[in-house]
Amino acid sequence: MTDAPLTLDPPNRMLMGPGPSDVPPRVLRALAAPTVGHLDPYYLEVMNDTRRLLQGVFRTDNALTVPMSATGMAGMETCVVNLVEPGDHVLIGVNGVFGTRMCDVAERAGAVAHRVEAPWGQTFTTEQIEAQLKAHPEVKVVGLVHAETSTGAHQDLTGMGDVVHAHDALLLVDAVTSLGGMPVEVDAWGIDACYSGTQKCLSCPPGLSPVTFSERATARMDARQSKVQSWYLDLSMIRSYWGEARAYHHTAPVNMTYALHEALLIAHEEGLEARFARHRRHHEALRAGLEALGLTYVPERSLPMLNAVRVPEGVDDAAVRGALLREHGIEIGGGLGPFKGQAWRIGLMGASCTRRHVTTLLGALGPLLGADAGAALSAAAATYAD
Amino acid sequence: MTDAPLTLDPPNRMLMGPGPSDVPPRVLRALAAPTVGHLDPYYLEVMNDTRRLLQGVFRTDNALTVPMSATGMAGMETCVVNLVEPGDHVLIGVNGVFGTRMCDVAERAGAVAHRVEAPWGQTFTTEQIEAQLKAHPEVKVVGLVHAETSTGAHQDLTGMGDVVHAHDALLLVDAVTSLGGMPVEVDAWGIDACYSGTQKCLSCPPGLSPVTFSERATARMDARQSKVQSWYLDLSMIRSYWGEARAYHHTAPVNMTYALHEALLIAHEEGLEARFARHRRHHEALRAGLEALGLTYVPERSLPMLNAVRVPEGVDDAAVRGALLREHGIEIGGGLGPFKGQAWRIGLMGASCTRRHVTTLLGALGPLLGADAGAALSAAAATYAD
Repeated sequence: MTDAPLTLDPPNRMLMGPGPSDVPPRVLRALAAPTVGHLDPYYLEVMNDTRRLLQGVFRTDNALTVPMSATGMAGMETCVVNLVEPGDHVLIGVNGVFGTRMCDVAERAGAVAHRVEAPWGQTFTTEQIEAQLKAHPEVKVVGLVHAETSTGAHQDLTGMGDVVHAHDALLLVDAVTSLGGMPVEVDAWGIDACYSGTQKCLSCPPGLSPVTFSERATARMDARQSKVQSWYLDLSMIRSYWGEARAYHHTAPVNMTYALHEALLIAHEEGLEARFARHRRHHEALRAGLEALGLTYVPERSLPMLNAVRVPEGVDDAAVRGALLREHGIEIGGGLGPFKGQAWRIGLMGASCTRRHVTTLLGALGPLLGADAGAALSAAAATYAD
Repeated sequence: MTDAPLTLDPPNRMLMGPGPSDVPPRVLRALAAPTVGHLDPYYLEVMNDTRRLLQGVFRTDNALTVPMSATGMAGMETCVVNLVEPGDHVLIGVNGVFGTRMCDVAERAGAVAHRVEAPWGQTFTTEQIEAQLKAHPEVKVVGLVHAETSTGAHQDLTGMGDVVHAHDALLLVDAVTSLGGMPVEVDAWGIDACYSGTQKCLSCPPGLSPVTFSERATARMDARQSKVQSWYLDLSMIRSYWGEARAYHHTAPVNMTYALHEALLIAHEEGLEARFARHRRHHEALRAGLEALGLTYVPERSLPMLNAVRVPEGVDDAAVRGALLREHGIEIGGGLGPFKGQAWRIGLMGASCTRRHVTTLLGALGPLLGADAGAALSAAAATYAD
């Protein structure tokens, strides 16, 4: 090597983008606990306990609830490739980057993907989905994004499971950004397959993707005529490793499982309802502050943990984000796809969802926009006084 | 939850199975460094430096050298799905679990897989591969396992690249267990696609899979008629994230990259030749000791870092491994597939490859076999005196 290699010494950021979020010291300590083998009796206990804690945040009794050994996008691919066989019809709600990606993933799996589209920032009604299912009765899987990370839009899923099941289809839900920060009621909402990530409202480093399959989804999987196209993501084999057989499939990411376990334990200790209330409370404060700065929200119905706002006319997106990072050590996200340069995505996820995060961001952003930071901070503070 | 969740407190094992290996404290500290965003300028520096260090251990100048965001088996799938299109013919050397799996992965990708088989524990000659290529001139990819983790067999790759290239095919190599513990000469041997894991001779926790593609392989990928069936493993997109564009693909496993960087830095500081010599030296000692205990090796040509020996007649495999783990905190591996109950796989990988590991294992195993541990320790010690 010509140049000397880097000595690892990452800066201390305040992570307020679309994920990863700030990782609590407890989780980092768990991550660095001694590695044991992936078939060690102790690790098997950690696996069982992690599954139980995951069932808790997913609000499900699904036996097939596992963290996949790869990041959130692999969770999407896991759900699709295990449920879809070549030639199957699927219906996907496209109102941002992740619905668009789900179509791509489904088509790579040989599915015929029907798109139901909404403008970015908007979501779908049960009536819209029902109309599509009537128009395409051959559809076997309906894919919706609960929390569209590219637009900050919150898709209401109430009643969606009933509509989808009435047409003998399965409901597949992307909860990457929502899990652990707002209700994701897998059982109560009739979700058949759901995937998430670890680096959003669970505040664990990125690297795993929690996935859960209902009995209905598991039965569909078991009735497949063809092998799952991905060996690595084939849940029929992964289930054997997580089940009684403990059959070796791949070498599990042991330390990442430790970290996820600790992150789930923190959520369990806080209590889900308290955690959701915390996300709503700081979202309201941030929203009041951002609006006082003159910013407007992109989505009709914003997620609490991801605040997508328009970059004001005449403001240089990259310059502002660069200054936040360089001068304040704060990361916020830029826009994706058509929103590139047009939107900021400000996360309040998990450990990054505190009053300090709200205050610091408003205090740093105000002057960069030439706006009245004092008024923004007062507006935010007022919401806490309510 | 009915039972209280587990408080994470893993035992301190001595990892001498087929991986994971012992993780050095430096690597665990790096793993627990503060998480930054996957597009943070600091993280981009870590990515660049990690690639440079990976090129070093792979002994390659390949630009397309990246750690995939999943474990070693995903590295296998990455190489296969990026190089193979439906209907393509491939030739795979099957002499253990991992060659068998490569056929499965290739067939799931729509390939026609021709198997060239050898008894488990044996390997292939260039003449055998050449004869198969003459018999199947339509073969586009030849897959061989450099270090067959199920049998401990070392596949000599000298001259294999020339044979494969003379038939206009690509050479794909599994170096999961060998990388960092013995030479893996990607450029000098004419390897076109190679994958590995982090948890073997690199002594990083499991979670990533280093992959490298030659220019020839990259050109094949660029000439594809069809999309790669896996979105998550599609190198054409991952290359954009690792390249100038820094196009967002998935949220990289930031902390695992830190750990891999540190593990590679340790290998770089030790020097590859010194590291390989260390693996040979302790392998010779262990081998002398195991043979003094009356154990015999499975493969004709053993890997230094993985010692597969037959479970002696009348000895209870599970009881011995259980006692090693419970009473001594030592993990060794059992047999896979037809070797289940028939073989032990004793690893000397990376940080688990020291004189202390050799001594401890022989001292613990001898009495469990009712054999003369003193003689075994003397036989091992004698090899160090040479």
